[in-house]
This record gives sequence, structure tokens and C-alpha cells, in this order.
Amino acid sequence: MTYCLALRLDEGLVFMADTRTNAGLDDVRAYRKLHVLRPAPDRVFVLQAAGSLATTHEVLDRIARDLAAEDGRESLASVAGLFEAGLYVGRLSREVAASHREALSASGSRGTATFILGGQIAGEPPDLLLIYAEGNYIRASRERPFLQIGESKYGRFVLEVAASAGADVPSAIRVALASMMTTARATLSVGPPYDVGVYLDGALDVSEFRIDAGSAQLAGLGEAWERLMCEAVGGLPDVAPVAAVPGPPDVPAGTR
Amino acid sequence: MTYCLALRLDEGLVFMADTRTNAGLDDVRAYRKLHVLRPAPDRVFVLQAAGSLATTHEVLDRIARDLAAEDGRESLASVAGLFEAGLYVGRLSREVAASHREALSASGSRGTATFILGGQIAGEPPDLLLIYAEGNYIRASRERPFLQIGESKYGRFVLEVAASAGADVPSAIRVALASMMTTARATLSVGPPYDVGVYLDGALDVSEFRIDAGSAQLAGLGEAWERLMCEAVGGLPDVAPVAAVPGPPDVPAGTR
Repeated sequence: MTYCLALRLDEGLVFMADTRTNAGLDDVRAYRKLHVLRPAPDRVFVLQAAGSLATTHEVLDRIARDLAAEDGRESLASVAGLFEAGLYVGRLSREVAASHREALSASGSRGTATFILGGQIAGEPPDLLLIYAEGNYIRASRERPFLQIGESKYGRFVLEVAASAGADVPSAIRVALASMMTTARATLSVGPPYDVGVYLDGALDVSEFRIDAGSAQLAGLGEAWERLMCEAVGGLPDVAPVAAVPGPPDVPAGTR
Repeated sequence: MTYCLALRLDEGLVFMADTRTNAGLDDVRAYRKLHVLRPAPDRVFVLQAAGSLATTHEVLDRIARDLAAEDGRESLASVAGLFEAGLYVGRLSREVAASHREALSASGSRGTATFILGGQIAGEPPDLLLIYAEGNYIRASRERPFLQIGESKYGRFVLEVAASAGADVPSAIRVALASMMTTARATLSVGPPYDVGVYLDGALDVSEFRIDAGSAQLAGLGEAWERLMCEAVGGLPDVAPVAAVPGPPDVPAGTR
């Protein structure tokens, strides 16, 4: 599996992706899932992928082929808006999955992928889209300024309570990292290194960095997060028994 | 869905269950999923259930019927140990699911259920079992002193980092409640009231209480937990960009 998330802030966008992929527990590898695309000077995109790694790679190769072609075909350089870029990536994703469906069905795989596409085309505000395997999409919203793909359950609570469109970039990175570390601690299918991308409104360029797997930085972050979480649990008020529970009507009387 | 969890402490057992069930979003109801069973003076059990509510109810009814029967059949009063009680519940669960399988298959349902069974039979230590739909079981362990059934992903991290066999009961209830509130905040399929059961080693009786849905107590707990979680995120060290990420080999050159 995979875990990628992204936040849409008033001042820009923050992306974070793990790098673990596996085809069975004896074939675990690190692959990059956060890709920065600069197809033309007036635009920059960040594409995060979850699902079939093979489909993801072929989609990236088709994106590159369409950009290199000089026959006027649709590409990330030609689309007029981010939502058109989303539909374009969705179309490639469907086409790639469909082209392998028959062969993959023999092994029970569907070969589908989901994507988060974010970025900016000059003249538009920055935005974030989640592109489903079917090729359609939804946007992040001000009320719910985050999107997730892959193993999205483990780390959702942190985002629900702490993600805010008004946050500054360092705070948003902390929220994203808390969600990522929460997920990686709970499931072996998500793991470091973690790739981070930061986009500031109007910049038309993305700054990237990586938090390495064996680094002292990540070890310190992980220890801090576990300690802070234990302190948070310890800070909850005492739950005194408030009332005896009467026997409910849905339990057979003989069993109580 | 459902979320039930239980912790095995040195001093006893703590159980917590939500009460939300649904057959579609327009049929959401509250049903008890934590059942205390006192089949004989030398034993007490707590049974928590997730999965098909109909299967759960029929299993409880069959447990009661077997207890009432006077033909020497196996029952929760006759089993010699907790693991035999687990196998007995597993057998009932398989039998109920099998008896409805053909009819349910038309609607795509499997009618299976999973259970957590905990408690004590005099002469044995208290213990916790997770009973799979197939009828087999696993135990809690000292290294991992908790079991979960139902929507187990959202609230796992809190248990992984904060659950400890050496904890006292009030601390363990806080951990369980943190995991439960984390889950309920992230998914509509889990919700209050929450039922809590506490078993102290040797007591051969269970104390129960309920945390009510609209109560000031639960509102205060929820607010405290969200505030503590935001403070925990804010307490993480700043993540400074540590290095530029070199272009990885798995990205087509034209797309960077």
C-alpha cells in the first residue's frame, strides 16, 4: 500500500508521501510516489499516486510522451486549467488500467490507481484534486482542506482535528507528518523515507525535501510523537462510572 | 460498522464498545454490542460482537438456549476453559452464518461476525480472545495487550503507543476512550453511547457503565481529546528542509 496526503492552505499547498511499495511481504521496496511536473513555464504540478505501481509508472511515461509529441495532442502543457489536467490524468489512468485488465484479471488484480494532483496554472488559484480510478475527481475544500489516497484510515483523525486552511506551512507540515507517522506506526504497508513538497501561491515552483528512513531527525520525530500522544491520553479527564447500565431489551434474559 | 476493543491488564480486563449499527445510511440505530454473561457462579464472560447484527443476535439466543437445555449439551456453563468457550462461540457463529448463507448470498451479504470474548473461569487467569468468523481465535499478549474488532484502523495508533499491560484501570479506560473517540470522529459508522465493562482479576463479576451520546461528560471528553491532539501536533519539532531530493531513477526524465 501507500499513504499520500496533501493540504490546501491559504498560502499554498503541502504534499507528503511515503515510499513503501510491496508485492507481497517478501518484495518490499522504496519507490517515489510524489512527482513534480513542470510541463511549461506558466504551470507546475505535483502528482501523488496510490494503487498499482505499474499503472502509475505507465501514466507518468504517457504524460512524458504526450509532452514530447509535437502533433498538438492534449498534454499537461496544453490543458487550460487544473480541472482539465485532472481529467487528462484520469483518462490516462483509465486507459492504462483498461489496456492491462484482461491480462491482470487472471491474477485477481485490477491494476487501478488513484492520484492527488495539485499545483497552479498562472491566472488560476492553486488547487488540489483527488482523481479516482474511474477518472473523475473531487477538490479539497476550505472546510476540509486535505485529501488522502492509499491507507487513509489510520491517520485521518489528526487531519480532521488539526488541519486548517489558515495554518502556515511549518504547522501544516507538522500536521501532515503526524498523520504520516501515525499511519506508519500502525501498518507495515506504509513507511519512510517521506517525500515532502511545498508550493507557495504564485511561485510556479515546488520546493522538495525528503525525511530519510534511518535519520536521527525521523527517529527524534517518531519518539516525540509517541511521547506527545501518550501525554495527550494521560491528559484526558477521569471517566468515573456515571450510572449502572440497565439490561437492554435486545439481549436474551437468560444470558445476563 | 462497529468498533469494539478490549485490553488485558495485569489487574484485569477493560472492554469498550460503540453502539452504532446501520443497514444503509437511512437506517442507523443504537444496539448494544457488549454483553455480560454469567452462566455459572464460577465464571463470568464479556462478549463483544462486530459484523452481522442478525448473526450476533442469533448467537446470543443460541447461547441462552444451550444454557437452558438440560440434556448435557455443551454450553458456556459446561466448558472447562476460556479457550473452549471461544471455540464454542466460534462454532455457534459459523453455524448461524452457514444456516443463512444461501438466502443471504442473493443480497451479497455473508452474514459473518467476529467476537471478542473475555472473562475468567475460577482457577484460570483472566484472558481475552478474538474469535474470527471462521471459528478459530487468537489471544491478547503481554507485548500487545489489546484486541480490536470492527473499524479497527482509525484508532489503532493510540493503542499501539499507549496501551500497556501494567496500566491501572482508570488509565486503560482513558486509552480505550481515546481510541474510541478517534474512531468515531473519523467515521460516521462508529458512534456513542459507549459501553464500558471492567473486570478485576478474581472478582468473577463485571462492573459496567455507559457514556451517553448527548452527555456533558462525553462532550467534555471529545473537546479535551481534540484540544490535546492539536497540542500534541503543535509540540512536534520543526521539520526543516534537510536536503534537496535528487531526481530519482523511476521518474521519466521529461516530466521533471
